[in-house]
Amino acid sequence: MPETIPVDSVGLVTPITLHIDTPITLECGRTLPNYDLIYETYGELNANASNAILICHALSGDHHAAGYHSMDDKKPGWWDSAIGPGKAIDTNKFYVVSVNNLGGCKGSTGPTSINPETNKAYGPDFPFVTVSDWVNSQAVLADKLNIQQWAAVVGGSLGAMQAMQWAISLPERLRHVLIIASAPKLSAQNIAFNEVARTAIKSDPDFHNGHYTEHNTLPRQGLGLARMLGHITYLSDEAMGQKFGRELRNDTIHYDYDVEFQIESYLRYQSSTFVERFDANTYLLMTKALDYFDPAKDFNDDLAATVANIQARSLVVSFTSDWRFSPARSQEIVDALLSAGKDVIYAEIEAHQGHDAFLMPIPRYIDIIETYMQQVAKECEDV
Amino acid sequence: MPETIPVDSVGLVTPITLHIDTPITLECGRTLPNYDLIYETYGELNANASNAILICHALSGDHHAAGYHSMDDKKPGWWDSAIGPGKAIDTNKFYVVSVNNLGGCKGSTGPTSINPETNKAYGPDFPFVTVSDWVNSQAVLADKLNIQQWAAVVGGSLGAMQAMQWAISLPERLRHVLIIASAPKLSAQNIAFNEVARTAIKSDPDFHNGHYTEHNTLPRQGLGLARMLGHITYLSDEAMGQKFGRELRNDTIHYDYDVEFQIESYLRYQSSTFVERFDANTYLLMTKALDYFDPAKDFNDDLAATVANIQARSLVVSFTSDWRFSPARSQEIVDALLSAGKDVIYAEIEAHQGHDAFLMPIPRYIDIIETYMQQVAKECEDV
Repeated sequence: MPETIPVDSVGLVTPITLHIDTPITLECGRTLPNYDLIYETYGELNANASNAILICHALSGDHHAAGYHSMDDKKPGWWDSAIGPGKAIDTNKFYVVSVNNLGGCKGSTGPTSINPETNKAYGPDFPFVTVSDWVNSQAVLADKLNIQQWAAVVGGSLGAMQAMQWAISLPERLRHVLIIASAPKLSAQNIAFNEVARTAIKSDPDFHNGHYTEHNTLPRQGLGLARMLGHITYLSDEAMGQKFGRELRNDTIHYDYDVEFQIESYLRYQSSTFVERFDANTYLLMTKALDYFDPAKDFNDDLAATVANIQARSLVVSFTSDWRFSPARSQEIVDALLSAGKDVIYAEIEAHQGHDAFLMPIPRYIDIIETYMQQVAKECEDV
Repeated sequence: MPETIPVDSVGLVTPITLHIDTPITLECGRTLPNYDLIYETYGELNANASNAILICHALSGDHHAAGYHSMDDKKPGWWDSAIGPGKAIDTNKFYVVSVNNLGGCKGSTGPTSINPETNKAYGPDFPFVTVSDWVNSQAVLADKLNIQQWAAVVGGSLGAMQAMQWAISLPERLRHVLIIASAPKLSAQNIAFNEVARTAIKSDPDFHNGHYTEHNTLPRQGLGLARMLGHITYLSDEAMGQKFGRELRNDTIHYDYDVEFQIESYLRYQSSTFVERFDANTYLLMTKALDYFDPAKDFNDDLAATVANIQARSLVVSFTSDWRFSPARSQEIVDALLSAGKDVIYAEIEAHQGHDAFLMPIPRYIDIIETYMQQVAKECEDV
């Protein structure tokens, strides 16, 4: 926990829960009669509402992107390294909005929320949600905040997919899109890993077909397995080797199934902490949203055609050691944008941290975002 | 199943179970008072017993490396593409011995065998086995077959680790070693995947701490998960994409958790068939043997020092798309052999099949083995 709040932090923040009383029809065909969106904001909206930035979270993320909820917090928001006064996404210049997506488990309507039609938690009956659904709900939030047009929509991984969808679906509502550590759609290998994760969760007898809350239990082992697996895919082979190598936790090999290698210890710790803070039904929904994301499917798999009508300018960033969404995947996005005659800046960042690099304060990465956002800030004055 | 046995096949083969009545003390400190080894042989041992080849199997492999057990077999042995009359490992020239390792579940003493001390199956109480233990037991088999020196010891993946260990531990007992798709030790990422697999198996309530047989059940879901995960690591991202892409099994997305993408279908099929033919306790033991393999640990992590006393000449083979044991890992082996002044031939094979490539009849790969083995065959006459 912070002894004192760092000077370049947004400081103590209080999330806001907005209740939206109008229905939203989802791509799967089902409708939510009303719903909540929990969000945080950092900075101030300027007079002509031209300096708003939307932050979209990834698979296991949420609305708490920066700052602290209380002095007891062990860590700040997940992107505190990039968002704050004087930081790359400068809250002295921008009004930054960070929202928890539908289907989430941190305050927006999701599986843990009460279904008004049954008065019980949605649980496994919460509808499937897609990236497009999230964009539509985020647009409703923007309307409520009187933000007609975002200066930029920013996200990493699944968050970047939302940013891409914004540019494709609501072209006039944003001027810039930052697409970080992402892909135009998942590969078969990506889907395969998600399928293993889902199978692990659903195989856990404590999952009870998603009704674990009613059984007063949690699918700890299944969700823990899913998280362990996810973790392996977020880290690079190299970084794992450097961090853990084949270091044993004890001096010698014990010939048992207890934790012997430090990497095992790390994975077990990561999985045990995760299951206490993340909902399993949410996890399933998020992986399906990832699997379904494929904007080019409506354009004959032609990604250039898909982005033909975007108006936003793009910054695309990839990381060398990211093997989940490799630089080659970002290159597909860049190539499509170039083919469609769109403005795009592309940076491949030298990094050893794997997919997780997009969360890290890597100097060249932060510089690039900062430089790009300075240009975005200048334009806000001209809007 | 074969309508007729192909002419270049070893044909119908009958495994032999050898009962060894002398104890074997394992690295973990425990002793097996006696044990069985099931094995197959193809070809004929020559007069001076100089043409014997040992085939070592990998994680989920066994003694049945070539030929057919009966006309009802759907497939031949796992390396039928390389072993047979006129094939790369030519059974017209060599006496090929293929053995199931201790701890296995196909006839050699393992968790499913009766423990003579308790008259019940060993189950989870079967001792941990290491690559060195396997080499020692294989040496006992060689003695029984009156084979003082192998012309070559050959293996892929975990099988290659046994081959390496033969060269290191019993230098005078082999003239050549073929080290295919392997590594001098597992990386942290490798161990991490094994840990997830083990956790999946042990989390399955049907596992019953390894006593599933006594409970008349099998840990199908846990072992199925482990196999799905293994499968992803054995295939290359590219090959998965080419084979499955994002092909849907049905025409449209259904928004449910049933199989939607073909890759999911494939993984579910692979896992369901595996659990019916492979023992979970064995699977755990095999992954631990993999994790423990690290011959250089006894030599201050100096691999060149580790191989300093080998007498065998080496062929090392890697596959470009193998991300489980990448070409860089084979290069470590090659570098160590060269530093130690040993004869080594190295080939990196262009292949899209990932780690599984070592089982495939890839032309350049088969050619290289064939050419090398022709040289081995020539020398047999001179021994």
